Amino acid sequence: MDFKTEFKPLTIDPDKIYDYSFSIIAEEMGQHDFSEDEWKIVRRVIHASADFELGRSVIIHPDAIRAGVEAIRNGRHVIADVQMIESGTGKARFQKYGGDVHCYISDEDVAIEAKRLNQTRAIISMQKAVKENEGGIYAIGNAPTALLELIRLIKEGKAKPDLIIGMPVGFVSAAESKAELAKITEVPFITNVGRKGGSTVTVAALNAISLLADQK
Amino acid sequence: MDFKTEFKPLTIDPDKIYDYSFSIIAEEMGQHDFSEDEWKIVRRVIHASADFELGRSVIIHPDAIRAGVEAIRNGRHVIADVQMIESGTGKARFQKYGGDVHCYISDEDVAIEAKRLNQTRAIISMQKAVKENEGGIYAIGNAPTALLELIRLIKEGKAKPDLIIGMPVGFVSAAESKAELAKITEVPFITNVGRKGGSTVTVAALNAISLLADQK
Repeated sequence: MDFKTEFKPLTIDPDKIYDYSFSIIAEEMGQHDFSEDEWKIVRRVIHASADFELGRSVIIHPDAIRAGVEAIRNGRHVIADVQMIESGTGKARFQKYGGDVHCYISDEDVAIEAKRLNQTRAIISMQKAVKENEGGIYAIGNAPTALLELIRLIKEGKAKPDLIIGMPVGFVSAAESKAELAKITEVPFITNVGRKGGSTVTVAALNAISLLADQK
Repeated sequence: MDFKTEFKPLTIDPDKIYDYSFSIIAEEMGQHDFSEDEWKIVRRVIHASADFELGRSVIIHPDAIRAGVEAIRNGRHVIADVQMIESGTGKARFQKYGGDVHCYISDEDVAIEAKRLNQTRAIISMQKAVKENEGGIYAIGNAPTALLELIRLIKEGKAKPDLIIGMPVGFVSAAESKAELAKITEVPFITNVGRKGGSTVTVAALNAISLLADQK
């Protein structure tokens, strides 16, 4: 069946739109090796991108879901690399456990330090984040330099996140930064292979984890 | 050459990252029919998605760039369907001409009305937006129902945006809503064919227009 041209009813009931989308995604995805919980993350990534190739490229560390759910329930904070992730994340699902969502990239002290060192604000914002937070879920969807800096801080023993959702998009260092993330053993992660990714799919994965924290 | 595995230097100078990305995008894109100004929009869409298929699917109305540039210089406002677009947009480039970026979807009166009518908040937020703004650039990257409602209001003579950037993503009504947009004659538009799209690529197109407003 050609789904692209098939008629879709213009449903306007919000809950029904989600349900209908997920049923289309499951049908078109067909066979895959994701577990039931992993699929709840991957289908949201596909929902946010309409991209099955991107969905199939997702890598979920065996301990990622448990670690993310525990972190949320323990009130650990979410650190976003960019404002779009902060604003796209349903904060209430973290705040009810005592956590919150932070983004340091527009902080004045971060901008000053980045300019002084001629580095990205993303790098300096990660240095600030690890100083200000114990553990935490790092949601990095835009800046490969943020992800690479976080990995460096972990390897130097200066950072110990509970979970990293690292899915930056782009042509310079994005795929490479995610390949580095997929190799680390110190911290569980959710990432994907290749250049694709971005803030919306990172938010989708994060929201999926927060929904699992409520349901489990 | 296999670009996916080719080594990319981990540049950290922010300006160089953009320049290098655009040179890779131009090289891999090869032949296309976009004009010089159109390409400035399309390459940013590709930059934000790492998706050449999505870039090639972009449709730019012949009057869209002129209308967008004029609207910004005349201090017309930007209306975003979701917060992610509002927070991802460089507001300073609009504010310096007297405009600003608004998003009504989380307003309390919108939520109450949506619940009362069992419709999406996106629909009600468009009704509020056209009441509160003369003209304006509508940036719709998430909610097909917002785009369909805006088109309905235009056809009924109740709305007259300066430009619509309509690139919602998804499986229910997204492709259909964009096909409707591509048919309208009342208002210039930027859109794309198919299910793909989203807040990040909508922001990319909007930021490209705002950069053109500064340069032209």
